[in-house]
Amino acid sequence: MSKKKKYVYLFANGKADGKGTWKDLLGGKGAGLAEMTSLGIPVPAGFTITTDVCTEYYKNKRKYPAGLKEQVTDAMAKVEKAMGAKFGDSKRPLLVSVRSGARKSMPGMMETVLNVGLTSRTIPGMIVRSNNERFVYDAYRRLIMMYADVVMEKAAGIEPVDGHGIRHQLEHEMDRLKKGKGYKFDTDMTAGDLKRLADLFKKKVKEVLKKDFPDDPYEQLWGGVGAVFQSWNGKRAISYRKIEGIPEEWGTAVNVQSMVFGNTGIYSGTGVAFTRNPATGEKFFFGEYLMNAQGEDVVAGIRTPQPINKKQRGDSELLSLEEEMPKVYKQLMTIQKKLDTHYRDMQDIEFTIEDSKLWMLQTRSGKRNGAAAIRIAVEMVKERLISRQEAILRVAPNQLDELLHPMLDPAAEKKVTPLAKGLPAGPGGAIGQIVFTADDAEDWAKQGKKVILVRNETSPEDVHGMHAAQAILTAKGGMTSHAALVARGWGKCCIVGCGAMEIHSGKRELSVGGTTLREGDWITLNGTRGIVYVGKIALLAADPGKNPYYKTLMTWADQFRKIGVRTNADSPEDAALARTFGAEGIGLCRTEHMFFGPERIQAIREMIVAETLEARRKAIMKLLPYQRQDFMGILKAMKGCPVTIRTLDPPLHEFVTMDQKQVQELAVELGVTAARLNNRIAQLHELNPMLGHRGCRLGITYPEVTEMQARAIFEAAAELTRHGYKVYPEVMIPLVGSRTELAHQREIVERVAEEVKREKGKFPYTIGTMIEVPRACLVADKIAEVAEFFSFGTNDLSQTTFGFSRDDIGSFLPEYLEKKIIPDDPFQSLDQEGVGQLMAMAVKKGRSTRKNLKIGICGEHGGDPRSVEFCHRIGLDYVSCSPFRVPIARLAAAHAALTK
Amino acid sequence: MSKKKKYVYLFANGKADGKGTWKDLLGGKGAGLAEMTSLGIPVPAGFTITTDVCTEYYKNKRKYPAGLKEQVTDAMAKVEKAMGAKFGDSKRPLLVSVRSGARKSMPGMMETVLNVGLTSRTIPGMIVRSNNERFVYDAYRRLIMMYADVVMEKAAGIEPVDGHGIRHQLEHEMDRLKKGKGYKFDTDMTAGDLKRLADLFKKKVKEVLKKDFPDDPYEQLWGGVGAVFQSWNGKRAISYRKIEGIPEEWGTAVNVQSMVFGNTGIYSGTGVAFTRNPATGEKFFFGEYLMNAQGEDVVAGIRTPQPINKKQRGDSELLSLEEEMPKVYKQLMTIQKKLDTHYRDMQDIEFTIEDSKLWMLQTRSGKRNGAAAIRIAVEMVKERLISRQEAILRVAPNQLDELLHPMLDPAAEKKVTPLAKGLPAGPGGAIGQIVFTADDAEDWAKQGKKVILVRNETSPEDVHGMHAAQAILTAKGGMTSHAALVARGWGKCCIVGCGAMEIHSGKRELSVGGTTLREGDWITLNGTRGIVYVGKIALLAADPGKNPYYKTLMTWADQFRKIGVRTNADSPEDAALARTFGAEGIGLCRTEHMFFGPERIQAIREMIVAETLEARRKAIMKLLPYQRQDFMGILKAMKGCPVTIRTLDPPLHEFVTMDQKQVQELAVELGVTAARLNNRIAQLHELNPMLGHRGCRLGITYPEVTEMQARAIFEAAAELTRHGYKVYPEVMIPLVGSRTELAHQREIVERVAEEVKREKGKFPYTIGTMIEVPRACLVADKIAEVAEFFSFGTNDLSQTTFGFSRDDIGSFLPEYLEKKIIPDDPFQSLDQEGVGQLMAMAVKKGRSTRKNLKIGICGEHGGDPRSVEFCHRIGLDYVSCSPFRVPIARLAAAHAALTK
Repeated sequence: MSKKKKYVYLFANGKADGKGTWKDLLGGKGAGLAEMTSLGIPVPAGFTITTDVCTEYYKNKRKYPAGLKEQVTDAMAKVEKAMGAKFGDSKRPLLVSVRSGARKSMPGMMETVLNVGLTSRTIPGMIVRSNNERFVYDAYRRLIMMYADVVMEKAAGIEPVDGHGIRHQLEHEMDRLKKGKGYKFDTDMTAGDLKRLADLFKKKVKEVLKKDFPDDPYEQLWGGVGAVFQSWNGKRAISYRKIEGIPEEWGTAVNVQSMVFGNTGIYSGTGVAFTRNPATGEKFFFGEYLMNAQGEDVVAGIRTPQPINKKQRGDSELLSLEEEMPKVYKQLMTIQKKLDTHYRDMQDIEFTIEDSKLWMLQTRSGKRNGAAAIRIAVEMVKERLISRQEAILRVAPNQLDELLHPMLDPAAEKKVTPLAKGLPAGPGGAIGQIVFTADDAEDWAKQGKKVILVRNETSPEDVHGMHAAQAILTAKGGMTSHAALVARGWGKCCIVGCGAMEIHSGKRELSVGGTTLREGDWITLNGTRGIVYVGKIALLAADPGKNPYYKTLMTWADQFRKIGVRTNADSPEDAALARTFGAEGIGLCRTEHMFFGPERIQAIREMIVAETLEARRKAIMKLLPYQRQDFMGILKAMKGCPVTIRTLDPPLHEFVTMDQKQVQELAVELGVTAARLNNRIAQLHELNPMLGHRGCRLGITYPEVTEMQARAIFEAAAELTRHGYKVYPEVMIPLVGSRTELAHQREIVERVAEEVKREKGKFPYTIGTMIEVPRACLVADKIAEVAEFFSFGTNDLSQTTFGFSRDDIGSFLPEYLEKKIIPDDPFQSLDQEGVGQLMAMAVKKGRSTRKNLKIGICGEHGGDPRSVEFCHRIGLDYVSCSPFRVPIARLAAAHAALTK
Repeated sequence: MSKKKKYVYLFANGKADGKGTWKDLLGGKGAGLAEMTSLGIPVPAGFTITTDVCTEYYKNKRKYPAGLKEQVTDAMAKVEKAMGAKFGDSKRPLLVSVRSGARKSMPGMMETVLNVGLTSRTIPGMIVRSNNERFVYDAYRRLIMMYADVVMEKAAGIEPVDGHGIRHQLEHEMDRLKKGKGYKFDTDMTAGDLKRLADLFKKKVKEVLKKDFPDDPYEQLWGGVGAVFQSWNGKRAISYRKIEGIPEEWGTAVNVQSMVFGNTGIYSGTGVAFTRNPATGEKFFFGEYLMNAQGEDVVAGIRTPQPINKKQRGDSELLSLEEEMPKVYKQLMTIQKKLDTHYRDMQDIEFTIEDSKLWMLQTRSGKRNGAAAIRIAVEMVKERLISRQEAILRVAPNQLDELLHPMLDPAAEKKVTPLAKGLPAGPGGAIGQIVFTADDAEDWAKQGKKVILVRNETSPEDVHGMHAAQAILTAKGGMTSHAALVARGWGKCCIVGCGAMEIHSGKRELSVGGTTLREGDWITLNGTRGIVYVGKIALLAADPGKNPYYKTLMTWADQFRKIGVRTNADSPEDAALARTFGAEGIGLCRTEHMFFGPERIQAIREMIVAETLEARRKAIMKLLPYQRQDFMGILKAMKGCPVTIRTLDPPLHEFVTMDQKQVQELAVELGVTAARLNNRIAQLHELNPMLGHRGCRLGITYPEVTEMQARAIFEAAAELTRHGYKVYPEVMIPLVGSRTELAHQREIVERVAEEVKREKGKFPYTIGTMIEVPRACLVADKIAEVAEFFSFGTNDLSQTTFGFSRDDIGSFLPEYLEKKIIPDDPFQSLDQEGVGQLMAMAVKKGRSTRKNLKIGICGEHGGDPRSVEFCHRIGLDYVSCSPFRVPIARLAAAHAALTK
């Protein structure tokens, strides 16, 4: 009853032993070939040696399992029959390719040998069959070169130094021959030249590798198979697997397939096509081909490929395949429709026409841009090919970015050389004239000019100029530097940490390497990729609101997601904008940006230099009417959605950054001596402001600040409630690390709430805290006793968990990423292993003492799809992100719900 | 069979219902009185109402349990019999005191009423009995004042505003009477005056509180008892309990005890004494007394107390009790010996002589200084009173500090007013002349002057001056600021964060409030308490090596402790010193301090400005011979004990702190332009250096630094091994947060080790890491895969876990401590709840992947007793601290082992 284990899976003549879903056993490529064959699509016959063989090969000291040889011979016989040719035959010789094929594509990591089966015995037959001597010898010399390199040199255990291996030496032979004949291109070589070259190659191989190039087809075949298996554990493949997290034990399959040729004459050709337009998503067969050519010729770009059909041809002079070979085209149309429907996804297909016969070589899911991804997904639902759930999962959340911001025209961008590269802090494209100060940015913009503000780094005092500029470019800072945060909040294009750029503010110049740019020079930024260009590059406008497919998809996403999506917004304008993007509340309203208006900052500064509690209280209370107005606007704009307002967070010295002239002026205004003011400023200086006197530490040492802010919030809430508006303020205390800190601030806020209720009437509210230092996670059970909600501030939590200052990581992060010390910038995508572990702990502990604790995230990660999925997984109630990330977060949340 | 619950415990006539160990039931005071009574010591008879009554009182809406009244009446009858007097009797009236007494002493938190039982009926009898009318009326007016305040006002539910309660009003009455008569002291009042005053008091009480002062003794008694129980839930008591962690349900007992009086005439008196000398520990009865006085008179300091015996009297003019009342003294001697032996500890006793009869009022364990604690503990072992284990536990580890550093003479210090207060960063006392720069400190010291270096803060460039100074005083910084760390490492007196001090370096002046001090002025520092004095105060020298009791105790401690004690030392001198203190290895050898010598810093600076890898490598390799020499010295000094050497940790900008003149000079030396040098310095500037490019991040971006350091360590190790020395270097990589970081550095260190072994011969070594960011704890299992040891860097771990910069907490920490937001400075005593949770996690995770992982701590906490006990509890192998803390850590480790 013992049944021999099956190692070889045939695909031939419309029948395949395997299936499209058996990728684990057959690899991706083998499964695809089997599936197409079963669908009745013309695929050159062949067979797949399974991944099991690879595993056993390594288990058994690089020996093949018993029975493999027989199964291969057996399969080859069936392939021969299907193709009407015979491997090694002198009359009708069959040639095969030997290719790797792992479960997941590992492009370029493993070996391939083509034209296997060309020997002194089969060459004449091939010449007769193809009636093309040059073609045959060209194939032969390619085989020798590839085989010597991939199989023989490796088998000899030779490690070529600096690429000076056998391939290099054979290329040198070819160059010598071409030079001797005065040829420029490989194609200049005649059949005779190529025949001579093959002889020279074989001689060289023998000389260098001390072995003859094999003239036996099966020796060639097994050499190729062995080379593929060996390459699974080659250096390149191993390091690629490590990076991609592909387990070693998966192994690779080997595909042995009959060769077909698109370069045998004028009735042959080769092409690539998409079943739908990958740029727009329109359902329209779209592709390119070349007659009498091999696949590499289409890619090489020496000849201009022709359009696949009349619709695509338009006014072009180039004939389309539809016109040139209407029968083949019709067959191809049928096949592509079948594949599109069968795979229920837009396919990227490769085909070859050999002497008027169409062969399909590959089909796989096609790459597409954001707009196309959305349209294809939505239309496929309408075509009843896929479900709404599937449609949602077909669009990567980050692909929405392309729809939300103006983008550089990819075609135009391709033609220009980048000037410099930085971190892609704010997506989209922007064009503008360089200015070096915030004031200039504002002035120039008022004159109707488009400017890009270029700074070493930005500070809260630059905000007016940043707002006026088309985009912001800084030499320093990371993904969560001031510039990055502000720009992202506005959906503005921004590149930070562009370290190659030296700024000479005095001269109003910047230089990168040898290039110097001056104030007023035009530059273009690709904020999505972090690239700076000199001059202007065309922009494509963004209009998601007008895109019906986008709207449909987002509606579906909202139906399936389980987690709320809020926005971070500090002004009524941002709040209103975010609502158009679908935000269901404000997860973070920072109050400190509100303090920078001229009258306001004056009051803050008065407070800072005040000598007595009364003076301090008097100064801070001047801000009350402004703050109340701010909160009225935001609460009104959010129409009863929750609005989480954070009390003052930044260290006080941020409000007194100024030069000596300003100090003199301020001293006069405040009625103190400049010396005293300078003293106070010096006192406020901190060595590590990130870890300094900020957050609730301010509210605890200056309770009157919390008191004023609570009063402003509650007076606004009471006033609006009295006028019939629905409001839902949530007061959030920042940087809490212990129960006592929050309890202290809570007492103040509750007292003020009671006072305002008595004075002005009722309103709802809750009190909670940001969780943004590790200690808060460790004692979350205790903190939750006095918090109605938690909101993870993952920017600061990442800073403290890693001990990384996001303002200073520029000096080592690039090297960390390059050396794979860390997989991602932890300020872009949440570090789930470390920071995430703390978050999960905080969720569990927090809910252990308060079951209905509401938990969200308001760090920058709230708009990162992978991080959103993580937040869903650990049970958060909502994520909050900048307005322009809201749609992305909505889609990511739907993904999370559907893939859980 | 139902037995009534016993609520009242009698002590009278040499018999007591209770025992000294029943503190839970009787409170500390009640248990002590019962014990003394049972020992046959003359104690005024009385009874204790148990803590159970307090509990039931609060359970039953402030009602006493049934039967209590009867039990009290019953006990009172027995007390009356024992004292030969009767409560409320007109002839032989008995007066009692009503005092609280919880399990743990809560000094001043609860109420007391004395002289209960004085009424219009009993006063005449008291006058006859005492033959002292003035005494009786004085007692009476005191009773009225106390009772009105403690019992009547509280019962009336009146909350006095700003202390303007009944007591204040009665005091006002008394002042008016004294003023009218022209009296200065209370004692000037005659019997008649006091009688009149009592009448005035009663009138005022009636007027204000609308109730008569009770003239019934039992009404007074129950009023007092009620007041004590009520005070258990008074505001003061509640907040005290919260702070001290005393559970509410413990409740307080009430002690009702016969009054005895030391102020009834010339055969009466009162005193306090110690069974052994609390300053030296010598076994020698030691105390003070006053004739015809009450306890408060001894404390008040109006009269000079007399010595208790001839030995103590010496040449004084004051007679001793031994001479004045030899019989009473003899009795007292017997009693004190009995108490000392019975309690097996030095006792602090209170006694009263009433008409030649000795009464003992209290005995408790006496406070003592460090030297005394040690001597008493060691001698009591020799006297077979206690075991070695008990002796160890009798000495608080921090008490050793007094023996290890010169201290201010407490008597002299008491007489001087402090100038300012800061944080006690380096213990001991120091006297010196003020200097304001490190260079001045060095120059003056060379001239034989004693100086104290006063700075806003210190940096590595000040180290030579800090070393030359007697002590260091800074206006800024916390307990782990640069000044604090360096000073503690040297065992040098240091006060930091003295915020009241303004330094005018230009004028060479400092001012505190109105006081201005100039360069050369003398000041004295108490580094143990953080106090600055103007002028010179006498110092007491330290000589632990000559103290045989200290030596004996430390030998015992080493026998019992389970955890190793190492030291943090960066030089052979420190290493040798630490060995004399008992260090068993070096837990942290910082290498960066070694870089500040003139040739060395030059090489570092060359490296920093180097443009190419070769130039950088060349510069850094100049340090190799210096570093090798450093390590030779330290490895040799530690004689085969493990030496943990940390690779370069601080950010590079610490090496290029300089003014423009220095920049110019350095630029010339390095052969670069000043502009380029300035640019590089600006590039190195960091906003949050604590979280910046430092630790292993340096070693990863500049692998050549790690390589040089590893080579220096291993060449030193190989060289010494070849010469027959035993060495055990442990290479420690700082600031690791992920496995990949450590793996990267480990690869370099291992490669260099192999190279050096091939070149110079064998040596042992291990590789490990500091655990000092939260992420390292969270992924400790993965890190342990590539670490042979962990060493907790709890300074940085506390900074990152809290998000506190130790350099900047000065601005809010004092307020945090005052408002009880946090219980302790987390940089002094480990935050066990938060940081400790991470440590415990790291220990567990680390050992889950490497069973024999060696784990220690090298943060400042390694010398803090509570932290050492915590480290023992979570299973650390050793603690490491600055040399002068080593004995403290050894003793703390023994405590931990004995109390686990």
